[in-house]
Amino acid sequence: MSFVDVIAKKRDGRALSREDIDQFVDGVTAATIPDYQASALLMAIVLRGMSDQETAWLTEAMLHSGDRVDLSGIPGVKVGKHSTGGVGDKVSMVLAPLAAACGIVVPKMSGRALGHTGGTLDKLESIPGYRTDLTIDEFKGVLRRVGASIVGPTASLAPADRRLYALRDVTATVPSIPLIAASVMSKKLAEGGDALVLDVKCGHGAFMKSEADARELARTLVAIGVHAGLRTEAFITNMDAPLGRAVGNAVEIVECFETLKGRGPDDLTSLVVALAARMLVLAGRGTEAEADVLVRRTLASGAALAKMRALVEAHGGDGRVIDAYDRLPQAARRRAVAAPCDGYVAAVQADLVGRASMALGAGRQRIEDRIDHGAGVLVRKKPGEPVRAGDTVLELLYNDDRRLAEAVVLAQEAIHLGTSPPALRPLVLGRVA
Amino acid sequence: MSFVDVIAKKRDGRALSREDIDQFVDGVTAATIPDYQASALLMAIVLRGMSDQETAWLTEAMLHSGDRVDLSGIPGVKVGKHSTGGVGDKVSMVLAPLAAACGIVVPKMSGRALGHTGGTLDKLESIPGYRTDLTIDEFKGVLRRVGASIVGPTASLAPADRRLYALRDVTATVPSIPLIAASVMSKKLAEGGDALVLDVKCGHGAFMKSEADARELARTLVAIGVHAGLRTEAFITNMDAPLGRAVGNAVEIVECFETLKGRGPDDLTSLVVALAARMLVLAGRGTEAEADVLVRRTLASGAALAKMRALVEAHGGDGRVIDAYDRLPQAARRRAVAAPCDGYVAAVQADLVGRASMALGAGRQRIEDRIDHGAGVLVRKKPGEPVRAGDTVLELLYNDDRRLAEAVVLAQEAIHLGTSPPALRPLVLGRVA
Repeated sequence: MSFVDVIAKKRDGRALSREDIDQFVDGVTAATIPDYQASALLMAIVLRGMSDQETAWLTEAMLHSGDRVDLSGIPGVKVGKHSTGGVGDKVSMVLAPLAAACGIVVPKMSGRALGHTGGTLDKLESIPGYRTDLTIDEFKGVLRRVGASIVGPTASLAPADRRLYALRDVTATVPSIPLIAASVMSKKLAEGGDALVLDVKCGHGAFMKSEADARELARTLVAIGVHAGLRTEAFITNMDAPLGRAVGNAVEIVECFETLKGRGPDDLTSLVVALAARMLVLAGRGTEAEADVLVRRTLASGAALAKMRALVEAHGGDGRVIDAYDRLPQAARRRAVAAPCDGYVAAVQADLVGRASMALGAGRQRIEDRIDHGAGVLVRKKPGEPVRAGDTVLELLYNDDRRLAEAVVLAQEAIHLGTSPPALRPLVLGRVA
Repeated sequence: MSFVDVIAKKRDGRALSREDIDQFVDGVTAATIPDYQASALLMAIVLRGMSDQETAWLTEAMLHSGDRVDLSGIPGVKVGKHSTGGVGDKVSMVLAPLAAACGIVVPKMSGRALGHTGGTLDKLESIPGYRTDLTIDEFKGVLRRVGASIVGPTASLAPADRRLYALRDVTATVPSIPLIAASVMSKKLAEGGDALVLDVKCGHGAFMKSEADARELARTLVAIGVHAGLRTEAFITNMDAPLGRAVGNAVEIVECFETLKGRGPDDLTSLVVALAARMLVLAGRGTEAEADVLVRRTLASGAALAKMRALVEAHGGDGRVIDAYDRLPQAARRRAVAAPCDGYVAAVQADLVGRASMALGAGRQRIEDRIDHGAGVLVRKKPGEPVRAGDTVLELLYNDDRRLAEAVVLAQEAIHLGTSPPALRPLVLGRVA
């Protein structure tokens, strides 16, 4: 079938065949399908949708567009984790050493900051010497020695996804649950674990604004994983406010260390514990109750912190930062954003905090932008806390004040006060297995 | 607004502003908007639609992307005509000299064959010497001397439409009433007449298969014309079967001459008379009844035939072809396609006849294909006529038999017989003013 006819099929709301989808992905990978045809089909998919079967075929085709990491030579059960992205989402950097300290292997490929969401790789690169660009062999070596490794994706995994994502980004074809799900799962399947726990974020600071969309994305992701023979589960978690109290790069690394020392914010700690326990259950390491006990004990014992030090050093990073935070990039200046009146913090809108952090230099508007690892935002008052007029709610950390005014406005807009304690959604909104 | 946001707006079903549409058309014209973004927006428009207001703005923007022919120096009322295209549609070549002989000026820019539909320019180029590539000044000179001229579009009129159409053709974004309407009307407005009569074809051989779609297209076209201050009316006419009895190039020219000599097929003659009368009414030349009388008298008097001769010769063509059809390109060979049994012709499916004609060399699959002006198909039995087994229903005319077998199969498939006289739709299905 000519590719124009494939586009017309989806335009008219009909289902694509496996051959149609293979033609699309092969053509995108080999660049034999021009971008203008690919983008027309992408828009038709955004507006017409895809069935679970089409989405599974798309995922498989993207997976087969490149290499697949072979982790079979590494002893232990390998359990991956993926978050759909949020503001202050530093979960992976606490979870990977914690789960590894509990005895499972955590291979983790992460991404970079873009728009209002941060990126795990940028955060880790705050640590002097930390290399995110390990080769596959180096990655496997760290997994074997440490039990956890967090790296950037290699170019040979799911290259079709990289091309498609670049095109979606500039053609307003990002918001499509089947396309998002196939993009995520093709990479996760290429990473070669035995099981996968997903954290689908939902709310102001997440890609999925509504709980219904988040639930549909979670359902689709799990369906693809199960279809491909991967034990897969998803949490749906609240991203109305930033996770934890730190947003940025070095400041988030500090919060990770603090959490591994048992002094982390409640929301971050409880989410990390829940995800780690679920990873253990998926790895066949006992019941949920047993896993919960093991995880909490491992965190309290300092074993997870020790694993973090080993992980950082295995990646070439300076492990001394764990005890001396001043070895991390700093912000030379600070600006408090205060509560304008007495009351309760009703909301700290995650997307606006993320944009404020980006304005201060901690994030990227375009993929080629450079990051200021010392900049960021601290959440001094979380939703639900009482405040008095003049209390600092957000604190802006920066080195370059060129966009400070913009960040202040965004930070002010992010703060919503109320006269009585707000009804807050729970952090974990649901689970899909 | 960034162009990605414009795409997102239409993706989400919101109306584009005049500025959004200007940005799109200006960017397409100047090639500053990449094709992959343009095609994503086009697909969003196909699936989300556009309001009459958006369509009018799109038309205006495409009109202003190029030059506009200034016919104000030519005496008389200028009335244009446009058909949405069909099989055996030779109306313009009879109508233009007929209406001109009735005293109005008919400036006509036509197109080329593509797919199963023929093209007026290709048909006219059957006439030895006929030039379709007049300059605007030559075009105006012919209009002034003869009162009618049929030429190809110049590159300087609505260049945005040309770029957009090329992109739509390869991205499955052709079938959209607002896009079709804006494409047609931007060119018609650029051609600079005082009034316009549209022939919106409907049925098997037309772009619009359903009467509802044809009516909606007609309504949209008329709304744009009226919005732009052009007196505009549309006929909706049946294109289930080919118009007249000849499909091809030289054979259609012969049928035009025969019609101007008063010996044309009933359907073609009646449609041409109806359209010409309506053009006169729009030109303010009397009531419909008066116009009908004038048109019929002009046709019967030979004045329209004389005008045709003047038109052909003004374009450099050999006027002697009108009296000696053997001076036109011929087909060396003929193949009859017969009725397989006794009965009535229930249908002669126009699209299949068009494709048979294309297979014989009379049309084009791709814009760069060459045309055999002598090839074509003759409809020996029209829908409604009784036949006996073995009677010729279609006759294939050809010089090159490489694709004869394909043409025979298509011709056989085009013929539908019944045991009783069929209920046929009228030729004129409706009118929109």
